[in-house]
Amino acid sequence: MQGLIMDMPLMISAAIRHAATFHGDTEVVARTIEGDLHRYTYAEAHARMQQLANALIRLGMKPGDRVGSLAWNTHRHFEMFYGVSGTGAVLHTINPRLFADQLVYIINHAEDRLLFVDAATLPVVEAIAPRLTTIEHYVMMCEPARMPAKTSLPKLLCYDELLAAEAPHYDWPEFDERSASTLCYTSGTTGNPKGVLYSHRSALLVALQIAPMASIGVPNGAGVTMMPMAPMFHGNAWQFPYVAPMLGAKLVLPGRNYEPDKLYELLEGERVTLTCGVPTFWLILTEWLQRSGKKFSTLRISLSSGSAPPRSLVETMERDFGVQLMQAWGMTEALGGSAATMKPGAADLPFDQRIDQRLKSGRALFGNRYRIVDDEGKELPHDGVAFGHFRVKAPWVSSAYFKGEGGSALDEQGWLKTGDLATISPDGYIALTDRSKDVIKSGGEWISSIELENVASGHPAVLQAAAIGIAHPKWQERPLLVVTKREGASLTEKELLDYMRGKVASWWLPDAVEFIDQMPLTGTGKLWKLKLRERFKDYQLKA
Amino acid sequence: MQGLIMDMPLMISAAIRHAATFHGDTEVVARTIEGDLHRYTYAEAHARMQQLANALIRLGMKPGDRVGSLAWNTHRHFEMFYGVSGTGAVLHTINPRLFADQLVYIINHAEDRLLFVDAATLPVVEAIAPRLTTIEHYVMMCEPARMPAKTSLPKLLCYDELLAAEAPHYDWPEFDERSASTLCYTSGTTGNPKGVLYSHRSALLVALQIAPMASIGVPNGAGVTMMPMAPMFHGNAWQFPYVAPMLGAKLVLPGRNYEPDKLYELLEGERVTLTCGVPTFWLILTEWLQRSGKKFSTLRISLSSGSAPPRSLVETMERDFGVQLMQAWGMTEALGGSAATMKPGAADLPFDQRIDQRLKSGRALFGNRYRIVDDEGKELPHDGVAFGHFRVKAPWVSSAYFKGEGGSALDEQGWLKTGDLATISPDGYIALTDRSKDVIKSGGEWISSIELENVASGHPAVLQAAAIGIAHPKWQERPLLVVTKREGASLTEKELLDYMRGKVASWWLPDAVEFIDQMPLTGTGKLWKLKLRERFKDYQLKA
Repeated sequence: MQGLIMDMPLMISAAIRHAATFHGDTEVVARTIEGDLHRYTYAEAHARMQQLANALIRLGMKPGDRVGSLAWNTHRHFEMFYGVSGTGAVLHTINPRLFADQLVYIINHAEDRLLFVDAATLPVVEAIAPRLTTIEHYVMMCEPARMPAKTSLPKLLCYDELLAAEAPHYDWPEFDERSASTLCYTSGTTGNPKGVLYSHRSALLVALQIAPMASIGVPNGAGVTMMPMAPMFHGNAWQFPYVAPMLGAKLVLPGRNYEPDKLYELLEGERVTLTCGVPTFWLILTEWLQRSGKKFSTLRISLSSGSAPPRSLVETMERDFGVQLMQAWGMTEALGGSAATMKPGAADLPFDQRIDQRLKSGRALFGNRYRIVDDEGKELPHDGVAFGHFRVKAPWVSSAYFKGEGGSALDEQGWLKTGDLATISPDGYIALTDRSKDVIKSGGEWISSIELENVASGHPAVLQAAAIGIAHPKWQERPLLVVTKREGASLTEKELLDYMRGKVASWWLPDAVEFIDQMPLTGTGKLWKLKLRERFKDYQLKA
Repeated sequence: MQGLIMDMPLMISAAIRHAATFHGDTEVVARTIEGDLHRYTYAEAHARMQQLANALIRLGMKPGDRVGSLAWNTHRHFEMFYGVSGTGAVLHTINPRLFADQLVYIINHAEDRLLFVDAATLPVVEAIAPRLTTIEHYVMMCEPARMPAKTSLPKLLCYDELLAAEAPHYDWPEFDERSASTLCYTSGTTGNPKGVLYSHRSALLVALQIAPMASIGVPNGAGVTMMPMAPMFHGNAWQFPYVAPMLGAKLVLPGRNYEPDKLYELLEGERVTLTCGVPTFWLILTEWLQRSGKKFSTLRISLSSGSAPPRSLVETMERDFGVQLMQAWGMTEALGGSAATMKPGAADLPFDQRIDQRLKSGRALFGNRYRIVDDEGKELPHDGVAFGHFRVKAPWVSSAYFKGEGGSALDEQGWLKTGDLATISPDGYIALTDRSKDVIKSGGEWISSIELENVASGHPAVLQAAAIGIAHPKWQERPLLVVTKREGASLTEKELLDYMRGKVASWWLPDAVEFIDQMPLTGTGKLWKLKLRERFKDYQLKA
């Protein structure tokens, strides 16, 4: 027997219609690629999104067609989140920091019919355009006055001109909520990128799951301004472009300028209360804040994911700057993978224990199911000690990759293979111990490279640390610790190993420490261990 | 084109499985009907829910079958929310304060196969049992030692005995999320009660919408304990029985004892942070708090709905007791009808203006669509002034009544006819001006009875006020104000009208004031204007 409830699909377009109707005067503030700030309201954004929808239909886009964007966090990119998906077409957000070959593969594989570019990504696209086989039009995301004087791109249209030719009225259609809304390729470090295809339903369910973060510590829920530092091509900027309109919160977009002074100008000047991004942003920001003596007056929470923040960073942010770094686990295939909130009942914990909890990768979030398994697929206990391959299930988790390419995302029981190793505590805290491919296998046991890195990062002279396995005749692998030092700091291998001794099991202690000038980072700003392993593949351990 | 996302239905059972798995030690504290406190954990509750599911199946319950409960807010009733709906059967929560004829009609109309009763509702059921035509078994919600020595009920089973005979393991099935989960009849003041049939999908979507309330003002989201004062037979106790397990929050249930000292004992003793209920609870509670000199140390928010709280109550609660009374609009047919949070950006408002916003019936909540229309169905502007018939649409709003009886809930365009009159401000605040049937029509214009009551209630001597229309030869209707005075207070008609003068349009001023000893209340604790209109139907206005 069915309930007697209105049968209305969950549609992404409903979020901007809601914002425009009831929060029409609320601002969206975006830094343009050129560097100035663009301000307008949800009502104005909605009008332009409707123009965009009309323009896409005029260009022949049909439901399911892919429209690519190679763009930073700007107001036009925000418009595409609704103007494209709202018509039933699929927004394909592309990471401009990928290599040319990857970009060519991704765009051709997605069969993007249109490709939207901005002033920062234009040179990238010009370089690869001859190899793109499906693009019918390029669209430059700017006003007519800022169109490039010269470009090698054929048929480069002007975004604002396209919109100007259209009426600002479009009836957002309702259709199956399971329809594809957004396509996002994982920037794998091996093999071809794989396409993750979100649906309207999954995007909105995850947005509803994230919405409570915005209320934490906010009297009446009244003081919310959201700024995603995470790029919009990376997991929908953690749903902020959907959540802010849903809540009627002011939305701030940092463009492509991630210099700390520019980020601070927005975070403080626009009275941001909630932001999100990888810890790298904050390593740089806190250094800059300390140097410049700046403080925050409104910022309360930064959601963090992608890699483990050092304890000292979490402590500094909270103690010195009043910002809680709240970790959530997620990946392109599983947005909304864990709750960034602390466990109910944990409010009165002393500072140290709160930080302990904050160093976990969030905790179990309703709607997800979790398990950890060993190499044979046997389920391991949730005792906070056993660590195994981390598997999840949820109505917002990928079931397969686009066109079935890239292998199965799922194990035989239908759980997503996350590629992470984790422990799960009895009270639902998830602690990533390593990437499955990064764990160091020493004498048949696992050594967590992340744990070594966390401990090493606690040393004041260490900027970043990376542990990798080096082949060893007796133990199969032994850990090498690769370290970058903070500016002006001095540190020896012996000093660092002495510091680490007693903080990890003695047999986990790295066999050697190598100091380098700069860590290799992936296109998404994560430590690129593959490159380190290549660099040190012939490394000879002393013992 | 469909997204590539796991196709998992939204199931109510997922909430308790989540709580038992990751918050297994978190407490559920409930006052029994007998008055003592019962404490157990989500893990223990989950085990009993699985036993209940097995017992229901043994009793022959099949998906879609209705299982009735005439019960207060106890841990066994909480168990039924999952044990019944989780199997695919439909939990029919029945208001024990209804009249015998209504109860008989409702239970026979629902075709309940089982009827669960507690020590408080047993006499009610004994009185009507001979007229119930579909009940196969009655179940007494108690342990064996508390079974009644003597009862007229045939085949009265013991709840705890039923459970004890079953294994505490049951695999919650997954099925269509649009399946019926809960049946709840509206306690209309005219005509037969009408059955509203919720679905798993609608219950969980509304729960996700309410979850952010729990985080407001709470550091890290860590300090949440929820206690529904609203009865569980009334709109699922505003989804608290679903939201608390979803969040892993401690759940406190007040049984049937609503004496202020008993409520305070739970609210303060169990460190409740969030509660909900009609304002009547708080009128009584604040009086008691003031008399006894008690304060709250953890309670932050009380969600309020059902009727308009007087301004003085909202002010007192916040200023003297640190509790924000946050109003949301909703009705049995439309749970989750508005957001109880304030508008983002309103955090820095001065006290008076915050209270102004708090006196609205919440604000537009994402997922709902709203309109106000005049008597001819013409849409009226959202200017905060025009008031019209309030209509809503959402994927959690009723589309029809059970078995199609009770007429259509919807207007010709498919919007729910709420029976309320409201204004909508440009920034999405909804202000109820009246019930459509209570508005006083004077000389072709509408006078809001609620507005008159709010102004009158501001007088310190007024406990409750009710404005009703009295037939008038010239003006069609004119307002009569019916008032109960606070204990020991003195007040005359002239004093009250003088007080109101200037606070409402002069032609809205009541033609007369009548003082009575006690307001008639409906089974759900609301002012029963129908009874007042009957009592004063021959009232002669002086002029």
